[in-house]
Amino acid sequence: MPSSDSRLGLLIVVSGPSGTGKTTLCRKACESGQAVFSVSCTTRPPRPGEVDGKDYFFLTEEDFLARVDRGELFEYARVHNRWYGTLKSYVAENLRKGIDVLMDIDVQGAAQVRGCEDELVTKCLTDIFVMPPSLEELRARLSGRGTDSAEVVELRLKNAEAEMKHWRDYRYCLVSDTRESDEARFRAILQAERMRSSLRE
Amino acid sequence: MPSSDSRLGLLIVVSGPSGTGKTTLCRKACESGQAVFSVSCTTRPPRPGEVDGKDYFFLTEEDFLARVDRGELFEYARVHNRWYGTLKSYVAENLRKGIDVLMDIDVQGAAQVRGCEDELVTKCLTDIFVMPPSLEELRARLSGRGTDSAEVVELRLKNAEAEMKHWRDYRYCLVSDTRESDEARFRAILQAERMRSSLRE
Repeated sequence: MPSSDSRLGLLIVVSGPSGTGKTTLCRKACESGQAVFSVSCTTRPPRPGEVDGKDYFFLTEEDFLARVDRGELFEYARVHNRWYGTLKSYVAENLRKGIDVLMDIDVQGAAQVRGCEDELVTKCLTDIFVMPPSLEELRARLSGRGTDSAEVVELRLKNAEAEMKHWRDYRYCLVSDTRESDEARFRAILQAERMRSSLRE
Repeated sequence: MPSSDSRLGLLIVVSGPSGTGKTTLCRKACESGQAVFSVSCTTRPPRPGEVDGKDYFFLTEEDFLARVDRGELFEYARVHNRWYGTLKSYVAENLRKGIDVLMDIDVQGAAQVRGCEDELVTKCLTDIFVMPPSLEELRARLSGRGTDSAEVVELRLKNAEAEMKHWRDYRYCLVSDTRESDEARFRAILQAERMRSSLRE
């Protein structure tokens, strides 16, 4: 018989093009105390005000690559000459405490996490692809922000199209509608997944 | 890109001891138009008022067994000298129309459905075990009904204990709490599962 209050945390991988509100959905879930954001590690230097262990784990390149070699990272990528990645130990510690961890990562990162054969991760992992209602609507949302030039919007749309080819790799496909509907459905997924038998001892 | 309004139906198998409110949960989901109850077939004669195709599909024993031989049934069992089972064609027709189908069946029936290697079923199937908060609470609920003798209550508890050994076979374990909480969590599971990528073309 499962104990009703003791369970592993969920590892929730969330992907989707920018402009779908994906990051806001994740942030809302964290604000309401439902989950914590995964803290990544990076080799870029901290910006003013950034706190080690809160915003990022700041590592030297030597340390980062040594950890990669020892298999301590779930997923990692090089962006603008800097390394970014996620430490397995950080995620595992939270999951064992029953804390749900959200990872807002791209389709390549998600594939790396999915490919990890760790037993704990297999028990705890779920993934959600947040899909724009249509490319037209995504263009309207990206242009509507007013922060990006027309060229940047087109580039984002191209990336979006490439990312969107991978929606089938995710257990859930949340097609974005209104903000309220998206939030309610995101919450429903988290609420349902917390009842997964695999999370219980 | 998935169409947001075209999807296969879910096949939701629900098991759990009597006294957990499992049947009420299923009925509520059907009343609110979220799903339909699976109509079983049986070789027992119709009772007054029962309608063929609504309460049951009433079949002769010869027809029933011929269908079993042709592999047309998902699951079947003999109870009190009569056959009961579920026709694959009935379920498949609903799933293809995008209608969610609830099956309130025991752990043996659920194992039969899970063992079915039909591709459509694999895409659409999910299962929920409704668990009493504790055996003591289940005893209190069963006695509280006032419909069963102490002996019958003890027999039901014995059966419950045997059924409860199988909760891990189900994707979801819903530990019964208040009726409101149970209904909300059951709804959340259905809402989440409807976003499964496997349901979309």
